[in-house]
Amino acid sequence: MKIPKNVIQRLTQYHFIIDGLNAKEEYISSTHFAKLLGIDNSQVRKDLSYLGNSGKCRVGYKVQELKTSIENKLGFYKPHDAFIVGAGNLGSALAKYSAFKDYGLNILAMFDTDPVKIGSYINGKEVFDIAKIASLVGRLQVDMVILTVPKEQADIMANYLAGAGVKYIWNFTPCVLNVPAHIKVWNENLIGSFLQLTNDDGIKEKEEHDRN
Amino acid sequence: MKIPKNVIQRLTQYHFIIDGLNAKEEYISSTHFAKLLGIDNSQVRKDLSYLGNSGKCRVGYKVQELKTSIENKLGFYKPHDAFIVGAGNLGSALAKYSAFKDYGLNILAMFDTDPVKIGSYINGKEVFDIAKIASLVGRLQVDMVILTVPKEQADIMANYLAGAGVKYIWNFTPCVLNVPAHIKVWNENLIGSFLQLTNDDGIKEKEEHDRN
Repeated sequence: MKIPKNVIQRLTQYHFIIDGLNAKEEYISSTHFAKLLGIDNSQVRKDLSYLGNSGKCRVGYKVQELKTSIENKLGFYKPHDAFIVGAGNLGSALAKYSAFKDYGLNILAMFDTDPVKIGSYINGKEVFDIAKIASLVGRLQVDMVILTVPKEQADIMANYLAGAGVKYIWNFTPCVLNVPAHIKVWNENLIGSFLQLTNDDGIKEKEEHDRN
Repeated sequence: MKIPKNVIQRLTQYHFIIDGLNAKEEYISSTHFAKLLGIDNSQVRKDLSYLGNSGKCRVGYKVQELKTSIENKLGFYKPHDAFIVGAGNLGSALAKYSAFKDYGLNILAMFDTDPVKIGSYINGKEVFDIAKIASLVGRLQVDMVILTVPKEQADIMANYLAGAGVKYIWNFTPCVLNVPAHIKVWNENLIGSFLQLTNDDGIKEKEEHDRN
């Protein structure tokens, strides 16, 4: 059964919660998850039903069993290799982000067009000339790229990557990529998140005359 | 009318698309948006109806009008101030991320507990001792924090921030924060995104024996 995207997001969060529990806790209730995430109890139970697990009335879910079934269902810790294209600030931060490695995402190398960056190492990952990506995609059998180039270059680069044999692009640029239909793009829209956050709850805006 | 979160995400993406258009384009069709985002035409029209704009049959939406109404509706470019707590790799990258500034998010300062980092500057933003945050929240009237501390410190730090008067936390840690109910948390779940991406389309897994 295909798990909806929102459910995958929440299952990941239930796993975060379990990870933070005292090792002695044997059971966890749907109410505990619901309260921490500010969602309905019934939503939690529905999400967890995708795992084929069932909680016991008044007792809850067995912590270790639940943890393992989330991991198996979502493929935690299964190794996936990827390249980062764009060795700027965001690309470099993601290359150093240890949580990726913890969950199975291995950044094998980085690519850039800047001669100053090419040949350098970021967190032990070499920055290659982008011209070399097609041969490395083939040689290392990597088909996933994390795209962190400036937005002016995003579309051109995405199409270049498609031509180089990349199949999956995790797009961190504030752009919608216009790529061939067989390329699967996942948009990480940080600007959209920021606008959601500020629309959601009316975070106080600064008066214009406050600034100079 | 409150706009659902998914619609805000998509409206942002329509804006990205308009931004990338040739300046001479006068009209844009819902089909153009739909094709680039891989969604239904009817979804696009429904999303745009939140703006009170209506397209003309066979011609489409006036580009400039649509751009302005998205900006007004979502509050683009309205200044919002924030602090970054955690001056590590991710925090530093976000402090340097120019797209935030473009859309109105101003990072005023950073905070950390590491004596080596305190007093340094990242992209012109001073890193302060976390102990000073309560007074700076009050003095600069900032109520929003971008949280990028290591996951082991996330919960303790979030509660410390709540005590310091912070009201909104944009949480980049792989944790679900257990904070008082009046604190609004927005989770940026990069691990969940990664797991969605790999579940979605069965990105090739490396065989275990490939690794050493």
